Amino acid sequence: MYLPDSFYLGALDRVVERLGAGGHDGLLVTHPADVAYLVGFCYAVTERPVYLWIGADHDRFLLVPELDREYAEQQHSHALVETYFEYPGVTSPEEHLAGLLRRRGLGAARIAYTSSISVGTFDRLRAVLPDATWATSDVVATLRLTKAPEELELHRQAAGICDSMLAAGRAYIEDAIAAGGELPREGEIARHVIGHGTDLVYQRYDRVVFTTKLAGGLVYAGPNAANPHGLPSSRRVQRGDTLILSLGAAVLSRFVESERTFVVGEPSADQRRYFEVARTAQHVGTEAMRVGRTCADVNAECLGVIRDAGMGEYLRHRQGHGIGVQNHEAPWVEDGDPTPLAPGMVLSSEPGVYVPGHGGYRISDTVLVTADGPERLTTYPRGLEENVIAA
Amino acid sequence: MYLPDSFYLGALDRVVERLGAGGHDGLLVTHPADVAYLVGFCYAVTERPVYLWIGADHDRFLLVPELDREYAEQQHSHALVETYFEYPGVTSPEEHLAGLLRRRGLGAARIAYTSSISVGTFDRLRAVLPDATWATSDVVATLRLTKAPEELELHRQAAGICDSMLAAGRAYIEDAIAAGGELPREGEIARHVIGHGTDLVYQRYDRVVFTTKLAGGLVYAGPNAANPHGLPSSRRVQRGDTLILSLGAAVLSRFVESERTFVVGEPSADQRRYFEVARTAQHVGTEAMRVGRTCADVNAECLGVIRDAGMGEYLRHRQGHGIGVQNHEAPWVEDGDPTPLAPGMVLSSEPGVYVPGHGGYRISDTVLVTADGPERLTTYPRGLEENVIAA
Repeated sequence: MYLPDSFYLGALDRVVERLGAGGHDGLLVTHPADVAYLVGFCYAVTERPVYLWIGADHDRFLLVPELDREYAEQQHSHALVETYFEYPGVTSPEEHLAGLLRRRGLGAARIAYTSSISVGTFDRLRAVLPDATWATSDVVATLRLTKAPEELELHRQAAGICDSMLAAGRAYIEDAIAAGGELPREGEIARHVIGHGTDLVYQRYDRVVFTTKLAGGLVYAGPNAANPHGLPSSRRVQRGDTLILSLGAAVLSRFVESERTFVVGEPSADQRRYFEVARTAQHVGTEAMRVGRTCADVNAECLGVIRDAGMGEYLRHRQGHGIGVQNHEAPWVEDGDPTPLAPGMVLSSEPGVYVPGHGGYRISDTVLVTADGPERLTTYPRGLEENVIAA
Repeated sequence: MYLPDSFYLGALDRVVERLGAGGHDGLLVTHPADVAYLVGFCYAVTERPVYLWIGADHDRFLLVPELDREYAEQQHSHALVETYFEYPGVTSPEEHLAGLLRRRGLGAARIAYTSSISVGTFDRLRAVLPDATWATSDVVATLRLTKAPEELELHRQAAGICDSMLAAGRAYIEDAIAAGGELPREGEIARHVIGHGTDLVYQRYDRVVFTTKLAGGLVYAGPNAANPHGLPSSRRVQRGDTLILSLGAAVLSRFVESERTFVVGEPSADQRRYFEVARTAQHVGTEAMRVGRTCADVNAECLGVIRDAGMGEYLRHRQGHGIGVQNHEAPWVEDGDPTPLAPGMVLSSEPGVYVPGHGGYRISDTVLVTADGPERLTTYPRGLEENVIAA
């Protein structure tokens, strides 16, 4: 679970190049995912801010709370590690940051920053650096849109874990059926598959770090599956249910998601009909993920399959989203995003059909856009016949 | 896992009262924890914003993405549910919000908001509501500083789960020792105790919802334990290690944390010395949590025990923090927070001693401030003799 130094140094070089072109003296990086992406420092996020400074002159420092000092140094973060003691502090983290910049003659610097920073924090920064000028920048977001080959290898490894989690979830239910007792609760299945994925990570990697999680999952069955983002409940799976396993895993915080729809017992005519529409939309939408087409255009073709089948009222969300250091990130495979697809983008393809009171149908793959067409990184079987759980 | 309607209606009344006094037409609530606190809607947080409007005239609506419509309605959220289709949307969520406000004659409203909102979102809001005036407000943060009796019951239930997780973690290691094989990895212990806590929640409650998680944990042993917030690694626990289980659990997102330090095998003289100083500091700091004393003052007394023992160089963080709908929230038991303690505050008390290359020592209880003194909600044994794991 490492990326080579060359990955980080290359990304940092590209940032510095863009800073110079934009007339900025440096970039203040504040989002944990951007910090992990640029210098490889992954940490438990709390109210204590972490500030990464990248100077247009290649000077870099990482300001972390004292409790993360040794941890940041051990991760070989590609920046000098500086610390403040605590939050909120008699001297605030922002005052510490201002002191470090002034010591470098940067009290009146032209500072680029990302607009994910909170209004409260930004107000504090402006107060302690009254002579600086500030401009938002999308330099890191732009870099993160396409993935480097070294990152793609991590995504592929995460996809293997994610597919294994799907198999583990199915086996867990089949084992309960074979044992003849009650079927498990949604929450118990979620706990089982997340544990399975987490175990795989610890078995496979010596050095485990993450930004938000190693493995996660939403599990819902029957009427609950009609809520695309419902939290796993204490309801037990029942014979006749449609069941969605919506799973994710990350290796060095390179995320993948893999979602499948199962039917417990012999599918009804309605279940077959909804399933096939969701399945076809997912196939068409995934095949549409080709270089040069826009996110909006791909999304329209994908969701069009569901609308054309007369199921437009059962749409609850877009086709998909980018995946990288965050499990949801730009670009957005949605009507409102005109971004053209480019080689190296990693996207989810996950249209869904949600029938209130009955259930939901969603299949998601994590897809790499290549010059030769879409490549599905997740490969668990997708068809209905393969995903009927005999009961 | 419910709070009565009276809890929400009472909190909303207090918000409206404060809005009127401040000359605001309404409050725009944007933080998931504030939404859960005020109207009881818990949801999977993504890039799709949720906006809760609380008018000074008692009018309320919750603007959610379409994929959460039915879910928000099923949770009996105490507000009218409105939706936008998707993110980023051809029409943005902020434009939808502006339309809903204009339809109510509030296009030029005086709007209170919380400074946790991002700069990017705030810029979009100002652009779509150019005639509105905006002022930050701490009305919800102030309410959340002290917990209602109904909330305290949930904290007590979470404390029971958290203590049970500590016992499960210890038993997991003892079982491995008894079996004569290798000791478990930090990550495996974390997976086990989180699973144990998650199972308890699903066994005990019919309706399970949460904001960020049900149960969580950091586990570190030996030299890794010297990093107060290190992520669980793939290192196996070894005989002679100091081991910290830093665990948390939540019931209806009312958090508790419980952390204990164990020694695997007969403690060395150094281990005894460091443990006793951390233990004494935690005892003194917890006893100091009395009504009317300030956070800064309590923290100084607590950390003073460690400094007076000549171990000031091993300090890496403050005594503690508030706990409620978030696992870390105000007030901060730190030098920079002058907040006086009041009955109903729930705080962590968790000073630590961290010896680079050797290990770490931290005991944390979740403490309720009462008129009669501090009440420890977590009760797992704290002493060294009780927390030696025979090996």
